[in-house]
Amino acid sequence: MNLEEYIELVNKKLDEYMHEDTFPQDIFKSMKYTVTLKGKRLRPVMCLEACRIFGGNIEDALPTACAIEMLHAQTLIHDDLPCMDNDDFRRGKPTNHKVFGEATAVLAGDALISFAPQVILEHSKNLSAQTLIKIMKEYVKFAGAYGVIGGQVADIEAEKNWKNNKFGLPPEDLLEFIHSHKTADLFKLPLRCGAIIAGASEEDLDKITDFAQKLGVAFQISDDILDEISTFEEMGKTLGKDKTADKLTYVSLYGLDTSKEKLACILEECCAIIDALKVKSEVLKDIIRGIKKRVGI
Amino acid sequence: MNLEEYIELVNKKLDEYMHEDTFPQDIFKSMKYTVTLKGKRLRPVMCLEACRIFGGNIEDALPTACAIEMLHAQTLIHDDLPCMDNDDFRRGKPTNHKVFGEATAVLAGDALISFAPQVILEHSKNLSAQTLIKIMKEYVKFAGAYGVIGGQVADIEAEKNWKNNKFGLPPEDLLEFIHSHKTADLFKLPLRCGAIIAGASEEDLDKITDFAQKLGVAFQISDDILDEISTFEEMGKTLGKDKTADKLTYVSLYGLDTSKEKLACILEECCAIIDALKVKSEVLKDIIRGIKKRVGI
Repeated sequence: MNLEEYIELVNKKLDEYMHEDTFPQDIFKSMKYTVTLKGKRLRPVMCLEACRIFGGNIEDALPTACAIEMLHAQTLIHDDLPCMDNDDFRRGKPTNHKVFGEATAVLAGDALISFAPQVILEHSKNLSAQTLIKIMKEYVKFAGAYGVIGGQVADIEAEKNWKNNKFGLPPEDLLEFIHSHKTADLFKLPLRCGAIIAGASEEDLDKITDFAQKLGVAFQISDDILDEISTFEEMGKTLGKDKTADKLTYVSLYGLDTSKEKLACILEECCAIIDALKVKSEVLKDIIRGIKKRVGI
Repeated sequence: MNLEEYIELVNKKLDEYMHEDTFPQDIFKSMKYTVTLKGKRLRPVMCLEACRIFGGNIEDALPTACAIEMLHAQTLIHDDLPCMDNDDFRRGKPTNHKVFGEATAVLAGDALISFAPQVILEHSKNLSAQTLIKIMKEYVKFAGAYGVIGGQVADIEAEKNWKNNKFGLPPEDLLEFIHSHKTADLFKLPLRCGAIIAGASEEDLDKITDFAQKLGVAFQISDDILDEISTFEEMGKTLGKDKTADKLTYVSLYGLDTSKEKLACILEECCAIIDALKVKSEVLKDIIRGIKKRVGI
């Protein structure tokens, strides 16, 4: 399958898994609203492709792939809340709390955190209990305070006092922590889960984790660059906020040119890891090319 | 073990499971703050006691029992947020967002939703993969939109337009839905999980679920009554808000006297279920007596 076919499959399944007709409908509509906003579906695609690369059946990874997109949507819903980034637009549409109100948006996010593993547990008919437990362990680790939420908490500090942050960390280290957890952990989760479902070896799991870490950091650098150089029309969300807020980002720390150089360098490393795998992956290469394209390098 | 011994054990384990020294410390401190506020520990105690009644080893149920208390704490943190009930006090102490700020409180709640199953998965050394999967399925169902969150969404509607609620439900049915899900589902979860860990039969699971449903409704009726008749000093939170807000509660719908009569009647039914079990439970009886005592019936 190519990238577009994967995306189509994911969109079809997301629509299938998310019901809107259960009482009380508000919460299910609110959950589905953000999950089904048009997006790049990078995380579920990576999950399916990792499963394929390591010899698995992508059908077996579909519930997990979609569940991780639901978790990603959850982080967006809560990130956009007035008490967090206070964003009105996401993927070109009004944010969840703008449509459903703050209380429902908080609860929709909460509900997605447990709905995602519910989808995995209910729909993964071919996975053994042992494999399901492994997937659950990956999910709870990367979804929580040891994963993406730890990154978000550090990110909040980076919005205010990064030069003299309360953690006493050098800005470079704080930035690395944020990128590793806020972004790369949600790349590690799908890539590792896809590989686990395929029964990949520990060695292969290490390789794909290394790839996920690098690609996640690269993706975040490209996001930081885009916040500086792109427009609302191109991105579907309010931009330039980092600069206005004097936020710690790759661009604020290293400047635009160095950021682009570092990004190109990390993406080369990502390519090298993919090229060294037994099964080649044009889809992962396409994702790398996509990141280059969005920032014009 | 008696009620006090169970509570002591749960408090000790909660303290042990919740770390505060992991980076970034704010989030872990915020999570631990609400989880370790002094509480009745009804849910974890019920989980341990259900495990004992059906012949299990309570040690095996400890991680699950504590995890469910963490989930309960999560619902309190998000319930208290300004966009929800906007409460400043909980269990006699400032609410989470008053201490750590709104953004961290939102994230601490999010983190607890996945930390709770993480505790189960990491610490339940004696449970088979099959049993763990059963526990995970219970958790994700009752924690999410099909469980406690569905109840909370309906509860929000009950604060505003319950006489002409947008669901088109008679107030009696709306109230029953709220009590069943907002409160009773978080009683079903620990009682069912304790029974599952003990290897209880389907028949016994049905009995304990019936008990949980009734006890949960009873507990919520007693809460509604206390909101009317108790004080801040006795309850450690702001009271009388239901009346001020003309909220749908047992008291607003049926009046104080009828509510007390219904409560006494339901608690009798709870006792009858317990008395009919093979193994007697003074601890569950004590919980029933506790509910009677708090409203003076």
